[in-house]
Amino acid sequence: MPWKDIQTIRAQAPLVHNITNYVVMNFTANTLLAIGAAPVMAHALEEVEEMVGLSRALVLNIGTLSGPWVEAMCRAGRAARQRQIPVVLDPVGSGATRFRTETALRLIESVRPTIIRGNASEIRSLLCERSGTRGVDSVHTPAEVQEEALALSRAAECVVSVSGAADLIVSNDRMVRIFNGHPLMSRVTGMGCAASALTGAFAAVHDDPFAAAAHAMTTMGIAGEMAAEQSLGPGSFAVGFIDALARLGESVVLQRKRTEGLL
Amino acid sequence: MPWKDIQTIRAQAPLVHNITNYVVMNFTANTLLAIGAAPVMAHALEEVEEMVGLSRALVLNIGTLSGPWVEAMCRAGRAARQRQIPVVLDPVGSGATRFRTETALRLIESVRPTIIRGNASEIRSLLCERSGTRGVDSVHTPAEVQEEALALSRAAECVVSVSGAADLIVSNDRMVRIFNGHPLMSRVTGMGCAASALTGAFAAVHDDPFAAAAHAMTTMGIAGEMAAEQSLGPGSFAVGFIDALARLGESVVLQRKRTEGLL
Amino acid sequence: MPWKDIQTIRAQAPLVHNITNYVVMNFTANTLLAIGAAPVMAHALEEVEEMVGLSRALVLNIGTLSGPWVEAMCRAGRAARQRQIPVVLDPVGSGATRFRTETALRLIESVRPTIIRGNASEIRSLLCERSGTRGVDSVHTPAEVQEEALALSRAAECVVSVSGAADLIVSNDRMVRIFNGHPLMSRVTGMGCAASALTGAFAAVHDDPFAAAAHAMTTMGIAGEMAAEQSLGPGSFAVGFIDALARLGESVVLQRKRTEGLL
Repeated sequence: MPWKDIQTIRAQAPLVHNITNYVVMNFTANTLLAIGAAPVMAHALEEVEEMVGLSRALVLNIGTLSGPWVEAMCRAGRAARQRQIPVVLDPVGSGATRFRTETALRLIESVRPTIIRGNASEIRSLLCERSGTRGVDSVHTPAEVQEEALALSRAAECVVSVSGAADLIVSNDRMVRIFNGHPLMSRVTGMGCAASALTGAFAAVHDDPFAAAAHAMTTMGIAGEMAAEQSLGPGSFAVGFIDALARLGESVVLQRKRTEGLL
Repeated sequence: MPWKDIQTIRAQAPLVHNITNYVVMNFTANTLLAIGAAPVMAHALEEVEEMVGLSRALVLNIGTLSGPWVEAMCRAGRAARQRQIPVVLDPVGSGATRFRTETALRLIESVRPTIIRGNASEIRSLLCERSGTRGVDSVHTPAEVQEEALALSRAAECVVSVSGAADLIVSNDRMVRIFNGHPLMSRVTGMGCAASALTGAFAAVHDDPFAAAAHAMTTMGIAGEMAAEQSLGPGSFAVGFIDALARLGESVVLQRKRTEGLL
Repeated sequence: MPWKDIQTIRAQAPLVHNITNYVVMNFTANTLLAIGAAPVMAHALEEVEEMVGLSRALVLNIGTLSGPWVEAMCRAGRAARQRQIPVVLDPVGSGATRFRTETALRLIESVRPTIIRGNASEIRSLLCERSGTRGVDSVHTPAEVQEEALALSRAAECVVSVSGAADLIVSNDRMVRIFNGHPLMSRVTGMGCAASALTGAFAAVHDDPFAAAAHAMTTMGIAGEMAAEQSLGPGSFAVGFIDALARLGESVVLQRKRTEGLL
């Protein structure tokens, strides 16, 4: 149940360590605060391992990567795995440039993330070289890359969470589709990155990363629907999304949740 | 017509590659998404040229520059010129420190931007050493630097777009003034940077960079007027500005447009 | 009187130079613009000293520090002291990792800040190694660290401003408590950083840094109360906070101000 996880996050305020991109740091931190988690951003080689030692989840996001940041992500990721805290990888723009694809693949191999969350083009790029990613947008739907998501889940031994109009979450033989959400979500920068950060918060309090990923995406989608009903455009939508995350109650989560498949 | 360009941007969602400053990345990306373009931020030497290869415009902004970023801007800029896609340069704070002025001049020489967009103090600093820039604010009006803007346009063989209470856009023997806008625009950080990014989006879809720069500034100003009518201060104004960009329709653009000079 | 300082800031628009963290740069700049100051962000070694030369206050914030940024902070800080402009240090996350604590202590020793502003855990960490900072949140209240704040003020010969539900500002034998504010302030990222930036703006126009720090925190708190009354959650609260700073008038400041102690 997403609602139970939300309650736990609010009660425990788990520290979620993010090594993420410049564009979305503010929105990511506010998303985590709104759901009740405690965000921290730290990327210096001098401190990433120590910060991981205080955290309950690590989120790695390659949106504006450069050499030293990749190194910090590797170190933090390995420290997280040693401590057995969940690691979420967001391969932003993988498939658009070789540097991004190779970095994403290197992080998968060296860190072995618990959950990979990306859009359909990014997920496809991790399995085949010509994915058609254009910049950081997706040219595919999650349904179109279902086979690749399953293959990636098996190959990387992790949960794969593919966001889109209908989100798809797979793990070995488990699969769930989530129909919550709103088109305005693709008009605000960092919504995907916020989804990855929320996935980290849910994974921090839920032992089953497949359920955590699904609950996070359901929560994202419900907050998006609530915000869309009050907004005049993408600006007020982004503000309302943060408000909605903070206001989520049990009844609205139960009533709005629209998923298909087995959790 | 600005409206025709807006329609084309919405229909084609051109990818606009930004190498810009940390302060405004989020607002810049949301501005581009709101008008209908697709933003991407990438600054690593390992990928800038490849990312330029996917893009239809490049925007270089020196707001929080440092050595490696300048190098990335040079490389990306040269790749853009080779591919013949438009390059917009925003010389943020040029004239305030020698590093900024020299970097702006170096980028002009090495990249040969299609359009330079700045405030009056920044534009003046590119032609004379003591421009009186104070931090990143302007102490001059566009009208006061008209001669310098014309001289810069001739010297650098590019369009020069000077923003202020009345924007001035010049190119060789062409000149236009744009009277749209609102004083609240100077109370939100990154409005000038957003203008440069929008200029990139318009230049991506319009072959004539002079018209593209003028249409971008007109669109900025109209969205600013619409936002000001609904806002309680600079916070809600910034939100409303993004909403307004996304909501712009043909009639509001036609009715509000206030320009003087020949396009 | 906070109101007199606000009027001076609005009249003079002092340039406040910030070397701060990626997460909050946008919100910090908008906070400074809203109160009437002129923000500039610059961190390159090539220009920090020159930028300090144009500024009336310097704000150093270690929220997402790394080696080159620390070096820039040291240089800028020393330049500021030579020019006798006030320096505000925000030791974000000090106590969480050794790198942060050591950097904060190094900046105190090498720069000798005019004002240190942090939460209770951060302030404690500067005097004793095991402060219990968890990430960037505080696990103590300002009242609990009163002795440490006084000791730090004496040892570092500076004003110490501790934020929390009730803010505490100390300097040698002076002490004031400020009861303005709202719990939503802790649900928005960068509110503490905004407080440090505002403290810089007030110190730029007020010769007495103790009074400047107190007035800045009072102003923060009042704007937070005003915003909370209009908001639906942390998203609209952050927007309303910026609006409120820009709208502050004499009567609301006088009526809402709740302080205890001698200014």
